[in-house]
Amino acid sequence: MNVDWDEITHVTKVDPAKSLPSDLGVLEGTDLVLVGGSDGVTESNSLEAIERVTDVFSEIPVFQEPYSSSHVSRETIEAADAVSIPAVYNGDRDHFVGKHVELFTEVGQKPDELLGSSVPLVGDLIASKGVEVVAELADKLVGEGYVVQHLESTAAAVSGVDTAYSPDEVAGAALATEAFYDFPIFYVEYSGTYGGPGDVEAAARYLEETALFYGGGIDSSKKASEILEAGADAVVVGDCFHDDPETFRETIPE
Amino acid sequence: MNVDWDEITHVTKVDPAKSLPSDLGVLEGTDLVLVGGSDGVTESNSLEAIERVTDVFSEIPVFQEPYSSSHVSRETIEAADAVSIPAVYNGDRDHFVGKHVELFTEVGQKPDELLGSSVPLVGDLIASKGVEVVAELADKLVGEGYVVQHLESTAAAVSGVDTAYSPDEVAGAALATEAFYDFPIFYVEYSGTYGGPGDVEAAARYLEETALFYGGGIDSSKKASEILEAGADAVVVGDCFHDDPETFRETIPE
Repeated sequence: MNVDWDEITHVTKVDPAKSLPSDLGVLEGTDLVLVGGSDGVTESNSLEAIERVTDVFSEIPVFQEPYSSSHVSRETIEAADAVSIPAVYNGDRDHFVGKHVELFTEVGQKPDELLGSSVPLVGDLIASKGVEVVAELADKLVGEGYVVQHLESTAAAVSGVDTAYSPDEVAGAALATEAFYDFPIFYVEYSGTYGGPGDVEAAARYLEETALFYGGGIDSSKKASEILEAGADAVVVGDCFHDDPETFRETIPE
Repeated sequence: MNVDWDEITHVTKVDPAKSLPSDLGVLEGTDLVLVGGSDGVTESNSLEAIERVTDVFSEIPVFQEPYSSSHVSRETIEAADAVSIPAVYNGDRDHFVGKHVELFTEVGQKPDELLGSSVPLVGDLIASKGVEVVAELADKLVGEGYVVQHLESTAAAVSGVDTAYSPDEVAGAALATEAFYDFPIFYVEYSGTYGGPGDVEAAARYLEETALFYGGGIDSSKKASEILEAGADAVVVGDCFHDDPETFRETIPE
């Protein structure tokens, strides 16, 4: 998956458990779609959401951002351009390294199931080239370094986050992403509330290769601009996409 | 730091708290030296060990592998070719992500101290180019994905490891290193005991870009060959370097 991160300034977060606007034309101008959520999300509604978006806008990259491996299947992997895996710096061990090793252990053991050995040609291919297929699958996985800053959010609860980072720690996590973990994305997540530009300013100082995403409470052109001017590469907008498409449109930079 | 990983087949682990062989000529033929240890190691003996090796063999890359940030200073960073930071997959949270964020938070806040603002020219440089200096410093840091498999070892105790990985989990951690974390090294550590070729075979299957190191109980040419034939890129030899230089010589492939 090659994404030109420089071109990404507006990201839409689609929750597969919520209803989508009847007219998906509102997505015009967004640069990337993330499909994922915690409550009520399944493999089936994830696949449906991915396909509804790609049917209308085939040129917008769509990433599945699963909260659980039960949301992922051969079909979702094939339908999405990438599968983004959160690594939550201020979460518990499971949400940084634990689940990743589990996931890759599973990928390493079951490439057949995950890539569809039911198709004879593919099955033969896997039999002869197991390791290459795993490598190909692994290529679709994109790491996102996360800091979850709103402690009352579901995102914090499901990632084992009980302490928000100070701006200095956010900067440290950003630098660790840029210099050590090499994830292509560093994501400051205020899920459900507006956190202001402070953390973005702290993180932006050390990010060059890494794309800096901010999400949380963006419901106006003014807030979107404030975050982008503070140094974010992109704002991530979710709630109002589902609830208020008109407000959503205002968050897309012209 | 550019290291040609393809050329590294024998690594010497030097413990700064132990006495070094009087004739360092025994290092002839080793491809990389790691300087680090847990008991009795200080900044000062680390620096001394690094300098003793580089004085004799300036062409062998020397990495400092600190167990604590108190082992690191401007002098050690400058004297070593790189500072390698273990990320222990089967350890506790601190030894994967916790200490890394702390370290980079500190690096981000104190580039002056770490890079020696006492030298006026350097101090001015930092004042004018703070971020670039941090980036340069960060460039010297190399991540090592670790699996610590000998539960009775000091390495396990200081990394919060209480469970060894199965070969499938070792393979999963290897694949996570190759496809997700992008550390240049994946290190199977049996610290003090010989673990045999099983974990190396499991990990080698999924590593292409990543260099595969095995350490623990290598005290003969036969064991070194067994590990290399199982797919390791390099064997890491420590104890007998200090205790029995003649045996150490036998572990270096011809």
